[in-house]
Amino acid sequence: MKAYQEMNKEELLSCKAGLKKEFEDAKGKGLKLDMSRGKPSVAQLDMGMDIFDVLNSGTDMKSKEGVDVRNYGVLDGLIEAKHMMADIMGVSAENVIVYGNASLNIMYDAVSSAMTHGVMGCTPWCRLEKVKFLCPVPGYDRHFAITQHFGIEMILVPMTPQGPDMDMVEKLVSEDESVKGIWCVPKYSNPQGYTYSDETVRRFANLKPAAKDFRIFWDNAYAVHHLYDEEDRQDKVLEILSECEKAGSPDMVYEFASTSKISFSGAGVAAIASSKGNLECIKKTLTIQTIGYDKINQLRHVRYFKDFEGIKAHMRKHASLMRPKFQAVLDVLERELGGTGIGSWTNPNGGYFISFEAMEGCAKAIVAKCKEAGVTLTGAGATYPYGQDPKDSNIRIAPTFPTPEELALAADIFVLCVKLVSVEKLLEGKAYKIAV
Amino acid sequence: MKAYQEMNKEELLSCKAGLKKEFEDAKGKGLKLDMSRGKPSVAQLDMGMDIFDVLNSGTDMKSKEGVDVRNYGVLDGLIEAKHMMADIMGVSAENVIVYGNASLNIMYDAVSSAMTHGVMGCTPWCRLEKVKFLCPVPGYDRHFAITQHFGIEMILVPMTPQGPDMDMVEKLVSEDESVKGIWCVPKYSNPQGYTYSDETVRRFANLKPAAKDFRIFWDNAYAVHHLYDEEDRQDKVLEILSECEKAGSPDMVYEFASTSKISFSGAGVAAIASSKGNLECIKKTLTIQTIGYDKINQLRHVRYFKDFEGIKAHMRKHASLMRPKFQAVLDVLERELGGTGIGSWTNPNGGYFISFEAMEGCAKAIVAKCKEAGVTLTGAGATYPYGQDPKDSNIRIAPTFPTPEELALAADIFVLCVKLVSVEKLLEGKAYKIAV
Repeated sequence: MKAYQEMNKEELLSCKAGLKKEFEDAKGKGLKLDMSRGKPSVAQLDMGMDIFDVLNSGTDMKSKEGVDVRNYGVLDGLIEAKHMMADIMGVSAENVIVYGNASLNIMYDAVSSAMTHGVMGCTPWCRLEKVKFLCPVPGYDRHFAITQHFGIEMILVPMTPQGPDMDMVEKLVSEDESVKGIWCVPKYSNPQGYTYSDETVRRFANLKPAAKDFRIFWDNAYAVHHLYDEEDRQDKVLEILSECEKAGSPDMVYEFASTSKISFSGAGVAAIASSKGNLECIKKTLTIQTIGYDKINQLRHVRYFKDFEGIKAHMRKHASLMRPKFQAVLDVLERELGGTGIGSWTNPNGGYFISFEAMEGCAKAIVAKCKEAGVTLTGAGATYPYGQDPKDSNIRIAPTFPTPEELALAADIFVLCVKLVSVEKLLEGKAYKIAV
Repeated sequence: MKAYQEMNKEELLSCKAGLKKEFEDAKGKGLKLDMSRGKPSVAQLDMGMDIFDVLNSGTDMKSKEGVDVRNYGVLDGLIEAKHMMADIMGVSAENVIVYGNASLNIMYDAVSSAMTHGVMGCTPWCRLEKVKFLCPVPGYDRHFAITQHFGIEMILVPMTPQGPDMDMVEKLVSEDESVKGIWCVPKYSNPQGYTYSDETVRRFANLKPAAKDFRIFWDNAYAVHHLYDEEDRQDKVLEILSECEKAGSPDMVYEFASTSKISFSGAGVAAIASSKGNLECIKKTLTIQTIGYDKINQLRHVRYFKDFEGIKAHMRKHASLMRPKFQAVLDVLERELGGTGIGSWTNPNGGYFISFEAMEGCAKAIVAKCKEAGVTLTGAGATYPYGQDPKDSNIRIAPTFPTPEELALAADIFVLCVKLVSVEKLLEGKAYKIAV
């Protein structure tokens, strides 16, 4: 296919006329499709329904250690739930505290308590003149929302297929004591689906931060969320806690995970993994904050999945549903935009998203055009702090919730809008290159 | 029975000799009894086991409004869960946000976010030189722990059978802008089981605080936790939100409740009730903190209890188990300490505790003596901020967890220790009057 940038004005105008007609036809269909939300599909949720048969009125409600899970007690989670979450993260159970239904909440609490009480004896961040976080971009809007909420300055760090730009990370972290954290999704990153290379993880572990209370916020949200069953198409990420320990900085990481996209979104089990020192500091706050989290739901999960093999088997079932969805979108992208020079996209081995890069200055217009034709996408800019994508080029595609048929339809509209907006911008002389 | 204070030295010495022997005998039995924790008994928890039959693999998982409760969404709770929690608190569902498994966590979050972000546009408390809370005493240790954790100064306000000393509350709240809150358990207070009178509630509603961001933390933990089925033995408390509205101060209250002691402790559903203005402010933080709480557990509770009548019927079953326990303790107290002048106690119509007042300076010694003889009580002082009871006289008795037989045994030891310690203190000339 001819690259749009190589077309002359006449070709562009003729192309535009055809696209406009196509767009009006599409609009006329009155579609209502949604590729905006990274949430599991109904069929996927149905796959986990037998978890509700695990507990019934006759069930023994004692944990492995003899705890009656229906009563108060056990601040940091059932031992068997610790093991389950530890297996997901590839860490030791003694490094784990099991929380309630959402890892986002744990991240919020970690930042919130660093603000009011400080990290392991350091000055509370609210008393500092300036606190900064590094934000690999594009990234997860809810991470950025937490740091924005607490008035933390966010510094953009470009993502690469191997992870964040580590030269920049090393420089900023080692030179600036006000840099207190970095948001990371190390595996199948949101939105690109990139997985940090071993070198990236090792460079993280070997950071020499200016701030004693610098912490890596390691959101291992997609630890077992592979799209393919073949070993060689399953990304692996080095276990960071032990890498940090080897590097002499055992306290540098907070790792987060949950079963939100394993069992049920919003009704799963979440956990933090960290060093003994960090966990002790966290428990000092936790013991004030709660008597304990929902141990019944912990028990339900453990008895249902049984062990890590059970979780992996369940995730293979999820993958069987999700693969055709990703494929449906990728097929349309490749067929319609391959070689046009007006877009590039990722083809991840797991996670919940495909990341699309339009020509600079086109993302907002594309999302708006899609909306006009009945296709909802994640708002352009959402993958950047403050909702501002400096190049206005990144669009997050979430193919997990709709059916493959809906996705093919939605992707058709999407590529049509990409073409139309790109042609218009080229005619205006406003956009020429793909951002990445 | 002769009051101990009227005994002469000889009588006290002879009394002491007998008690010492009794105490050594008791110690010899090697008992291991616990009246320290306000938690439900196993039999009580067993009464709710059929809640697990409500959801199974074939269940329709849609809420009344058609929400798939297994997926993300619904920040503030299912509408039917709002109604359930509203009924418990006697408020309107539109004034309710449903949270996760524990109201303590909501209280913590309320204080925490007031510290970092302020209340409805007011200056964040962390930026103020001084923040104070009024603490009716004796009270709930976990309330005091939250305010202590955030460095908030706690001012003791004496409790009366009608509620906190309102003359003192009115004066402090209206004169001191640094007074930002008060901890209240309006019904079957912890530990005394007192219920605020209508006059007390109206005086609360009519407070004219110096601080615009003064809030009443109204922990309605025992709203439906009656010990008796007879209407006239069920305490009622005026609904404070509407009283505040009538008084022109709709935003002055955060009310908290949970099903922790209705369904399961730590695996129930918790909620806040407040004005529209407060709820909007809370949601601004909540939307950063979480995508939503566990809606599956909300649905489970609603389908199980069906309506407020269902909750009341369930609580009558709990009461049938708890009445004989309270009675077992009260019988021993009355029989052994009635007329002795060395102790007074409450006889509540509901809640989880009996509050005991020893002679001044005796509480710690009594708790220690009980421990020696194998009976664990809540630590003396726990019912006061900083764990310090200025008169060292209050002891919280928690009769809910052990069996009535165990309670009778434990109460026997308790009264023996009260007598022995009192006699010793009287002989030392160190204690004479009952604190309250």
